[in-house]
Amino acid sequence: MTQTLPTGLTVTARVPASTANLGPGFDTLGMALGLYDEITVTTTAAGLTVRVEGEGADDVPWGPAHLVVRAIERGLEAAGVWAGGLDVVCRNVIPHSRGLGSSASAAVGGLAAANGLVALLDPALTLTAAQLVQLSSEFEGHPDNASASVLGGAVVSWSEDPETADGPRAFSAVRLAVHPDIRVVVLVPSERSSTAHTRGLLPAVVPHADAAFNVSRGALAVVALTARPDLLMAATEDRLHQSQRAPALPVTSRWIATLREHGIAAVVSGAGPTVLALTTEPFPESLRRAAESEGLTVLDLAVADGVQVS
Amino acid sequence: MTQTLPTGLTVTARVPASTANLGPGFDTLGMALGLYDEITVTTTAAGLTVRVEGEGADDVPWGPAHLVVRAIERGLEAAGVWAGGLDVVCRNVIPHSRGLGSSASAAVGGLAAANGLVALLDPALTLTAAQLVQLSSEFEGHPDNASASVLGGAVVSWSEDPETADGPRAFSAVRLAVHPDIRVVVLVPSERSSTAHTRGLLPAVVPHADAAFNVSRGALAVVALTARPDLLMAATEDRLHQSQRAPALPVTSRWIATLREHGIAAVVSGAGPTVLALTTEPFPESLRRAAESEGLTVLDLAVADGVQVS
Repeated sequence: MTQTLPTGLTVTARVPASTANLGPGFDTLGMALGLYDEITVTTTAAGLTVRVEGEGADDVPWGPAHLVVRAIERGLEAAGVWAGGLDVVCRNVIPHSRGLGSSASAAVGGLAAANGLVALLDPALTLTAAQLVQLSSEFEGHPDNASASVLGGAVVSWSEDPETADGPRAFSAVRLAVHPDIRVVVLVPSERSSTAHTRGLLPAVVPHADAAFNVSRGALAVVALTARPDLLMAATEDRLHQSQRAPALPVTSRWIATLREHGIAAVVSGAGPTVLALTTEPFPESLRRAAESEGLTVLDLAVADGVQVS
Repeated sequence: MTQTLPTGLTVTARVPASTANLGPGFDTLGMALGLYDEITVTTTAAGLTVRVEGEGADDVPWGPAHLVVRAIERGLEAAGVWAGGLDVVCRNVIPHSRGLGSSASAAVGGLAAANGLVALLDPALTLTAAQLVQLSSEFEGHPDNASASVLGGAVVSWSEDPETADGPRAFSAVRLAVHPDIRVVVLVPSERSSTAHTRGLLPAVVPHADAAFNVSRGALAVVALTARPDLLMAATEDRLHQSQRAPALPVTSRWIATLREHGIAAVVSGAGPTVLALTTEPFPESLRRAAESEGLTVLDLAVADGVQVS
């Protein structure tokens, strides 16, 4: 039986950005980062109003097609709840199309806001974290960014083997406690990147030795992120996606090479163009100034908790 | 300056068996298992005598070519120590050519025994665990079995990228603390398997999606082995080596399928033919009897510590 939300309920979801891949962990490793979009949803009698402030205010399509709205509707539907109308306000901070998971954050934020409304109506109907991982990953097609924004910390995520899937493919994730000595710095270029475009640069097949190489580094990354940050350089080596996409990301690739020459574990954040640097030392001021002089925005970010609803 | 060992020194190395791969962790994941070979080495004035008791006594080549002797010599050489002569006694328990790492154990045992003699001469000359991992992995060509027998527990091991290697390729490993609820059972067929042969069955290239699949499961395996044994089934899925080798290992493959249908995380141990089963429940008696009735030896094994010298 579908229950209807009363009018006048308001919730705000605060959802973190995320990075994905972390070098070897293609479509597997993710980490929530302390840049937050806020989504405020109020139930109304009828209709849909959407207002976007901040990042992307000028270029996000309005109306029901908006990813946040689709995610809100999906969350209400999954909980078996109906709303007469909605007023949605998005205060966006996460840069778009830079490899910081803004679309995953939109999906997670919409789902979490819907879940917050559901909780006001009947806590027994709320979706679990595992359901939020599943639904948000379905929007994305891969679980690494979305599950990081749901669970917080770093995540190991995985997708059900399509050969054994019975129905829609299941997406799952576990949170890792990131070692407190690890500092996260991102270098955000001003140009954008399209995940769809850069995915097209990936080869259909790879050498077996390269697959085994990334298996070892992906397993090592779990150890390095949680317990052995001294191993981050070896644990962020990759042969499955970064060199293949490098021609499309020349600035990114050059900065990764420069940082790694300085002993800083730098990788492409998601599909780029942002550079993610993991280190236990303060980020060198000379490198920061050099990057900024080239127009990159350099941000020191906290490892974030998962989406919060108030 | 090379120092010479006095005659009459005796040490015994007790070295565990190991399993490798653990499903997704091709050439990466290993685990030390509680089956032990013992190698006793005594310094003599001149010459070499070797006696082998137990497993393989009839088929291991005698004399200086023996892997254990080569490993002892390599260990002494690396420490800068020379012996006039050696008497070597091997008490072998680890089955040969079954995927239980007997050759890695021989290399590790020989190196550790040499290191024990060095310690009696001058503790300052002894090799570190990292050196033992390196030298034993050089004998093997891959570090997963050898590093497990050196370090004990489960291991994540990795090999230096040949493209960036400066000199001999570096092998490294870290030990993982295996969750105490995990029980290890091996099903050992009577027939043998050749790693060289089964490596030849591996494809030169694999789909990018299969590489990413194993990256996710390899990372998840670290989490499952240390903290989340409830995830062992997903964490032991593989697309890089087991199905490709299955035609050469029909009994092994059938038993893995049977055990997995029963919810037991079963994989090929190393290159086979032994089946490794990881579970948090007692191994079902009906399955144990069925395997034994087919001639497989079913052993409940402890996760072992690394090689010990006394």
